[in-house]
Amino acid sequence: MKERSVIIIFFILSNAIAQQNLIPFVKPIIGTEKMGHTYPGVTVPFGAVQLSPDTDTLSYEKNGKYNKDIYRYCSGYKYEDKTIVGFSHTHFNGTGHSDLGDFLIMPTQGKLQLNPGVASNTKSGYRSAFSHANEVSEAGYYKVKLDDDDIIAEMTASTRVGMHQYTFNKADESHIILDLISGIYTYDDKNVWTFVRVINDTLVTGYRQTNGWARTRTVYFAMSFSKPFAKYGQEKSSIKNVYKGFWRKFDETNNFPEIAGEKIRMYFDFNTLAGEKLKIKFALSSVSQDNALENMRAEIKDWDFERVKANAQNLWNEELNKINIEASEDTKINFYTALYHTFINPTTYTDINGEYRGLDQNTHVAKSFVNYSTFSLWDTYRSLHPLFNLIQPSRNSDMVSSMLAHYNQSTLHMLPIWSHYSNDNWCMSGYHSVSVIADAIIKNTYRGDPNEALNACVTTANRRNYQGIGDYIDAGFIPSEKSAVSISNTLEYAYDDWCIAQLAKKLNRQDVYDTFMKRSNNWQNNFNPVNQFMQAKMADGSFKADFNPLATHDQGFIEGNSWNYSFFVPHNPMELVEKMGGKDKFAKRLDTLFSMHLPDEFFAETEDITREGIIGGYVHGNEPAHHVPYLYNWTKQPWKTQEQVRKIMNMQYKPTPDGLGGNDDCGQMSAWYIFSALGFYPVAPGSNEYAIGSPSVNKATINLENGKSFTISVKNQRVKNVYIQKMVLNGKPLLRYFINYDEIINGGELIFILGDKPKKNVN
Amino acid sequence: MKERSVIIIFFILSNAIAQQNLIPFVKPIIGTEKMGHTYPGVTVPFGAVQLSPDTDTLSYEKNGKYNKDIYRYCSGYKYEDKTIVGFSHTHFNGTGHSDLGDFLIMPTQGKLQLNPGVASNTKSGYRSAFSHANEVSEAGYYKVKLDDDDIIAEMTASTRVGMHQYTFNKADESHIILDLISGIYTYDDKNVWTFVRVINDTLVTGYRQTNGWARTRTVYFAMSFSKPFAKYGQEKSSIKNVYKGFWRKFDETNNFPEIAGEKIRMYFDFNTLAGEKLKIKFALSSVSQDNALENMRAEIKDWDFERVKANAQNLWNEELNKINIEASEDTKINFYTALYHTFINPTTYTDINGEYRGLDQNTHVAKSFVNYSTFSLWDTYRSLHPLFNLIQPSRNSDMVSSMLAHYNQSTLHMLPIWSHYSNDNWCMSGYHSVSVIADAIIKNTYRGDPNEALNACVTTANRRNYQGIGDYIDAGFIPSEKSAVSISNTLEYAYDDWCIAQLAKKLNRQDVYDTFMKRSNNWQNNFNPVNQFMQAKMADGSFKADFNPLATHDQGFIEGNSWNYSFFVPHNPMELVEKMGGKDKFAKRLDTLFSMHLPDEFFAETEDITREGIIGGYVHGNEPAHHVPYLYNWTKQPWKTQEQVRKIMNMQYKPTPDGLGGNDDCGQMSAWYIFSALGFYPVAPGSNEYAIGSPSVNKATINLENGKSFTISVKNQRVKNVYIQKMVLNGKPLLRYFINYDEIINGGELIFILGDKPKKNVN
Repeated sequence: MKERSVIIIFFILSNAIAQQNLIPFVKPIIGTEKMGHTYPGVTVPFGAVQLSPDTDTLSYEKNGKYNKDIYRYCSGYKYEDKTIVGFSHTHFNGTGHSDLGDFLIMPTQGKLQLNPGVASNTKSGYRSAFSHANEVSEAGYYKVKLDDDDIIAEMTASTRVGMHQYTFNKADESHIILDLISGIYTYDDKNVWTFVRVINDTLVTGYRQTNGWARTRTVYFAMSFSKPFAKYGQEKSSIKNVYKGFWRKFDETNNFPEIAGEKIRMYFDFNTLAGEKLKIKFALSSVSQDNALENMRAEIKDWDFERVKANAQNLWNEELNKINIEASEDTKINFYTALYHTFINPTTYTDINGEYRGLDQNTHVAKSFVNYSTFSLWDTYRSLHPLFNLIQPSRNSDMVSSMLAHYNQSTLHMLPIWSHYSNDNWCMSGYHSVSVIADAIIKNTYRGDPNEALNACVTTANRRNYQGIGDYIDAGFIPSEKSAVSISNTLEYAYDDWCIAQLAKKLNRQDVYDTFMKRSNNWQNNFNPVNQFMQAKMADGSFKADFNPLATHDQGFIEGNSWNYSFFVPHNPMELVEKMGGKDKFAKRLDTLFSMHLPDEFFAETEDITREGIIGGYVHGNEPAHHVPYLYNWTKQPWKTQEQVRKIMNMQYKPTPDGLGGNDDCGQMSAWYIFSALGFYPVAPGSNEYAIGSPSVNKATINLENGKSFTISVKNQRVKNVYIQKMVLNGKPLLRYFINYDEIINGGELIFILGDKPKKNVN
Repeated sequence: MKERSVIIIFFILSNAIAQQNLIPFVKPIIGTEKMGHTYPGVTVPFGAVQLSPDTDTLSYEKNGKYNKDIYRYCSGYKYEDKTIVGFSHTHFNGTGHSDLGDFLIMPTQGKLQLNPGVASNTKSGYRSAFSHANEVSEAGYYKVKLDDDDIIAEMTASTRVGMHQYTFNKADESHIILDLISGIYTYDDKNVWTFVRVINDTLVTGYRQTNGWARTRTVYFAMSFSKPFAKYGQEKSSIKNVYKGFWRKFDETNNFPEIAGEKIRMYFDFNTLAGEKLKIKFALSSVSQDNALENMRAEIKDWDFERVKANAQNLWNEELNKINIEASEDTKINFYTALYHTFINPTTYTDINGEYRGLDQNTHVAKSFVNYSTFSLWDTYRSLHPLFNLIQPSRNSDMVSSMLAHYNQSTLHMLPIWSHYSNDNWCMSGYHSVSVIADAIIKNTYRGDPNEALNACVTTANRRNYQGIGDYIDAGFIPSEKSAVSISNTLEYAYDDWCIAQLAKKLNRQDVYDTFMKRSNNWQNNFNPVNQFMQAKMADGSFKADFNPLATHDQGFIEGNSWNYSFFVPHNPMELVEKMGGKDKFAKRLDTLFSMHLPDEFFAETEDITREGIIGGYVHGNEPAHHVPYLYNWTKQPWKTQEQVRKIMNMQYKPTPDGLGGNDDCGQMSAWYIFSALGFYPVAPGSNEYAIGSPSVNKATINLENGKSFTISVKNQRVKNVYIQKMVLNGKPLLRYFINYDEIINGGELIFILGDKPKKNVN
C-alpha cells in the first residue's frame, strides 16, 4: 500500500522531545465490529470518563431476565447497528462481560419522548438513526450526525469530564434527555437508587447506584449546560414508584429540583435557533457530587469545545509519542490504535483532590499515587502491565499501589482478581495481581514498600477457601470433582507462585522463595505423561476419563482447551519441553497447534472470538496461549516464532472496524501487538527476559521515562521478510533470541536484519 | 399522695452547682401505652443513638402493602405487647408517622432462627416473650429478661454508640441476630441497599439505605463484640437475590466477610458459659463506616458497661438539673419524665469529627456548631423550642444553625418543614422554622448571622409552588378548591409571617416588616364574621358551604376542627377577641370549647389521640390548640386559664405507661407540661411574653446558661388551690398575667400565692 501523506504537526513540549501528531493514525473504530468490544467514543489516556455512543444495550426491551444478547453490547456500541440510543459516560474497553454505561445523554427535538424506542422504528422513542458516513471517531474526539432530528453531536473529554456539543440545525424546542435507567448489563434491573439535584438552571448534580457486575457501585455526577434550560422534569412513573402512593407536596413532574428513585428519566428543554450549539460538561466522581463538581471546575473552566478537544488530543499525542515508529500506513494505524487501546484501562479512579471510594466503600485519600480502577488482570498481566512497566512505569507503579490499597481494604485479605469501581467480581482464574506486582518490583519500578507487597501476595495465595487454593496447597492440584476449571486454576496458580518466588528472591526472603518455588511446579500434577497433555485429575489422583484435548467444557478449563492450555508453563518452558519429549517433539506439537483444524463443535466452546480469531487450533482471540507463538524460541526452530507472530499480526490486527478477532480485553490484545510489532515479547512477566519475535515496524524509538531511548531499527522490512537474519545490539551482534529488561531500559539500539528465508540460528 | 423517700445523690460539677440525682423521677415507660408513642429504651440527651426494644413493627408480616397498623408502632414499642422482636438503634420520640428502627439486634440460644416469627408463637422465630415485671426502664438504662431463652438484656448508650450487655443464663451456643431488614415504616419494603463488612472476629461495619418517610436515607454502623464470635453468616435468600443467579466464587452463607444486598439478615455465633455476659458496642454515623468506627472509639473506649451507664445517667442528671423543682412525687415524676422527653429530639447529627450528611447528600463539616436532625417543627415550634430558648439556648442556636444549613443545601431554597436524616418529608402545614428562628434571634440567643437567617425565612415564605403559598400571597387565602388544608395553612402562614415581621423589625428591615405584618393579617380572610368561625373560602371569595365546626375532614383543616383552629391567631389574640365579639363573648366560647361534647363521628377524625386526649371539644392530644387554655388571659377571666391548665396537667399527664393522651410529638406535649407546671406559657413564640397559668410545682429553680437562676416559689400549693391570689416578682407585686423573657433571663424570683377560689384579677 502506498503511504498517504499525513500532516505532521510538531509540538515542542517541556521535556524537549519533538512530538509527532499521531492522532491521524488512531482509529478508535477498529474493533467495534464483531468481537473486539471496543468503543468509538472519547476518553483521554487512562481517563475516568469514557464518553461514547451506545447503539443499544438491549436492557430496554427485556424484563429483568437474563439477556444473553447483551454480550454483544459490552462496550455499548456495535458497528453493525443503524441507530444510536444516546451517549453515556462510562465504558469498558474490550471486555467480555458487561457493566457501566452510566448517564446516557441524548438530544432530540419536537415532541418529547422519554423512552428510547426500538431500533426498527426510531420514531418510537428518543433514539435516532445514523450512518457511518456521517461519523468521525478520533482519539479524544467523536462526531456523528443524528439523522432523525438533524442534530450534529460532537464530544471530547478531559480526565474526569466529558464535554458534549450539540448543533441543532433546525429551530425548535430542543430536549436533552438524561436517561438514568439506561445502563449496560446482563440484567435490566441493576439500578438500585438514583438521586438528582437541579441546583440552578444550568447545573445539576446527583448519583446512581447499581447492582451489576460490580455489586455495590455508586457513580456521582455534575452536569452543566452552556445555556439555561427553559424547563425540566422527570417521568411520572418514577415518582409513583418512589412514594408508593404517598402524597407529597409538590408537582414533581415539572421543575421539581429534588429528584430520587430507582428508575429516573429526565428531560431538559431549551429554545434553540437554527444552527445553535448547546454544550454540556458532565463530570464524574466515585466519591461525591461535591467532588464531581470540583472535578468539573478544575478540569474544564470554560465552554471552549475546541480547546478541550485540542487538550485531549495533546494528551493523547504525549502518550502515543512514547513510541515513535516508522512503518507502512496500515502498520502505523494498527500500531497507534493498539497503543491507544492499551492506554484506556485501567482508568483513573481518584478525584482531582485525591479522594476515591475504596473497596470498603469508605472514602480514601490516595497519598502520593493516583488510584486506578478496572483491573482485568487475567488478561492484562500477560503483556499490558509488562508494556506499562517499560513505557508507563510511573503509572504502573501507581496501579500496583492501587492493588495494594484494594488489598488493605479487603476483608478477605485478597489482592484484586478482576476489580472495577470499588468492587471485585472475582472473574476468571488465578491471582494475577502477584505477577504485575512481582514484575514491577523486580524491575525496580514500584515506588512503594516491596515487603508489604510481598506479604499481600503471599496472603492472597494462601486464601484457602478461594477457588480451590486449599486443595492446591494440600494436594498440588485441584480435584476435578470440586471445580469446573481445575486445570486453568492450577496452571495459573503455579505461574503466579513462581512470580511470588521471584519477588521473594529479590527481597531475600528465602523461606517464601522455597515454598513458592515448590508450588510453582504444581503444573506437573495436571500433566499426563501418557498423552503429554494437561488433563483434569480426580481427588483420588487418577486422571479424569473422557479426555478430549479439543474441548473446553467439562475438561477443567476456562477460555481454552487442552491443546492451548498444555503450553501454559510460561515460567518454565524448558521443563515443559523436556516433559513433552524434547525440543523437536515440542516444536512439532507447536506446528500441529498452528495448523490443525478446530471443528465447529469445539470452536463453539471457545468464547468471545470470531473464526478469524483462531489460527489452526491456536486461539489468539482468547488469552491463555498468547505466549505460545514465542515458545519456538525454546526449540531449535526460533524462525517459526518469527513466522507465526508476523502471521498473527497480519491476520488478527487489521485497520478496519472488524479488525480485532477477539475481545480487546482492556488492552491485552493490543499490548500483544505492540510488543510483537517491536520484535519481542514478555513470555513470563516477572522474569527479566523478553523473547524475540519479528518486528513489523521499520523503525521504532521507545522514549523511556528515565530520559533514555531504545531504538529498534529494522533492515529489509518487507511483507515476506519475516525471518531474522541477524541482530545487532548496541553495535554488537546479539547471539540469542532473548533481550533483557536492562538492555532496553538503559537505552540503546537493536538492529534487526530481516530476510525472506529462515535463518536457523543467529548463534 | 404521700411522698416516697428517694435517694438523692449530689454531684459536684465543674459549674459548681450541686446536682440532684433526678434519674429516679424519670420513667421512660410513660407514654408507651396507647397513643404516647414514646419508647422505653436508652438514649443520652439529644443522642444520635436511641437503642430501644421493638415489640413489633408489623412489616415482617406484610407484603409490600400499605400497613395501617404500623401507626401503633411509630416508636417500635407498645406496652400492651407480650413479645420483644429485638433491640434497634434509632427511634423517634412520640411521632405520629413512622420511620427508623435501624439495625435490630436480638440474642438467642439453641437452634438458629433467622426470621422474627410471630407474636402468637415466639418459638416460630427469634423473638421472645417478656413481661413488664422483669423490665427496668430508666434514663440511660434499660433491662429486660427475654423469657424464651432466659437471657437478661441490658443496654445503655453514649451520644453516638449503643452498648448492649446480654447475660446468657444457660450454657449453650448463643446467637446474636443482626436483622438488617427489620425497620419501622408503613411499607415493609423500604430497604434499598445494605452493605456489611466483617473486618475481624469482633468488628463489623456497614450501612443500610432506606426509602421510607425519609426518601433517601443512609445510616452507617460499626459493631464490636466483647469476645470473638466462633462463626457467622447470612440468610441464603439474600445472596440469590443479589447475584441474580450469577455464580460467585465463595460460599457466601458461612464466614464470608463481604456482604451486600437489599435484604440481609445475619447471625454471629458464640460459645457461652452459663452466666456469661456478652457485650456489644454499636455506633452510628450519617457519613461513613469510618466515621461510625471513629465515633465508637472516641466515645466508648472499653467494655465497662457500668461506667457507660453511669456516664449516660450523669449526662441526664446534668440536663435534668437545668430545672430543680420541689413538688409531689407524682408531679416530680411527670415533670422530670416530661423534661427527659423534651431532651430527646432533635437528635445529634454530627459525627465526633464534625462531619454530617447534608440534605444534598454531600458530606459537610459543621463548623462551630453541632448539626441536629429530626425537626418536627409543626409541633415543636409551639413550646419545645421556646423552652430550649430558655434552658438550652446554646443547643437551640445550633438547631437554628442546622436549619440554615438545611436551607443552604436545599435546591428548593426552603427551610425545613419536617426534616430528618438529610431529608425533608414536608409533613403538616406552615413553615414554622421561621418561628424558631425569629424567637432565637429576638431573644439574642442565636449566634449566627441574623440577616442571613431573615433572608432564608423570607425566601421560604415566598416559595410560591409550595402548599398554596402563591395563592396565599396573591389572594390572602388559599382557595378551598386547591387544598384540603387551606385554612390550617393560611392561619399558620399568618402566624409565621408575623414572626418574620418581628425578626425584620429587630433587624431594622422596615420593608420586610411591612410586607409580612400585612401578610400576618391574612387569618382574617378565613374568618367568617357571620358565624365567627374560621371557614374555608372558595376561589371566588365565597365561604364554602356545608360548614361544620366539629368536623376536621373536608373542612380545610389538619388535626383539628374549626372549633379548635378558630382560636389560632397566637400573634394577635386581641384582634381575634374583637372579631369574636369582645372579651365576654370570647370567654364564653372558650367555656363552650372546654365543656362541649365531641360526638364520636368527629372524634374519629381527630387523629393520634385517645378519648382521654380531649377535654370537651379541646383536643390537647393534638397541637393546634395548645395555646388556647391560656387565651382567657385576654379576657376578664384569667382564672379560667389557671383552672384549665391545672385540669389539663392532671388529666393529660399521668405517671403511668398510658399517661400521655396523645403523641408526645418529639417532646411538644412534654414541653407544654414543663411550661405549664412552672406557671407560664409562650402563646406566641417570637414575642417577648409568656402568659401566666397556674404552676403545679411547689418550687422551681431554672438554672440558666448565663449563670443566673430564676426561681418560681409557690405558696399554698394544694390540689384544689389552682387559683392565683397574688404574684410577686423580685419583691414587687406582679400586676399582669404576663411575664417577659428579660425578667426570666436576668434571674430573680416569682412568687405565686395560690388559693382555692378564683381571684378575678391580680391588678
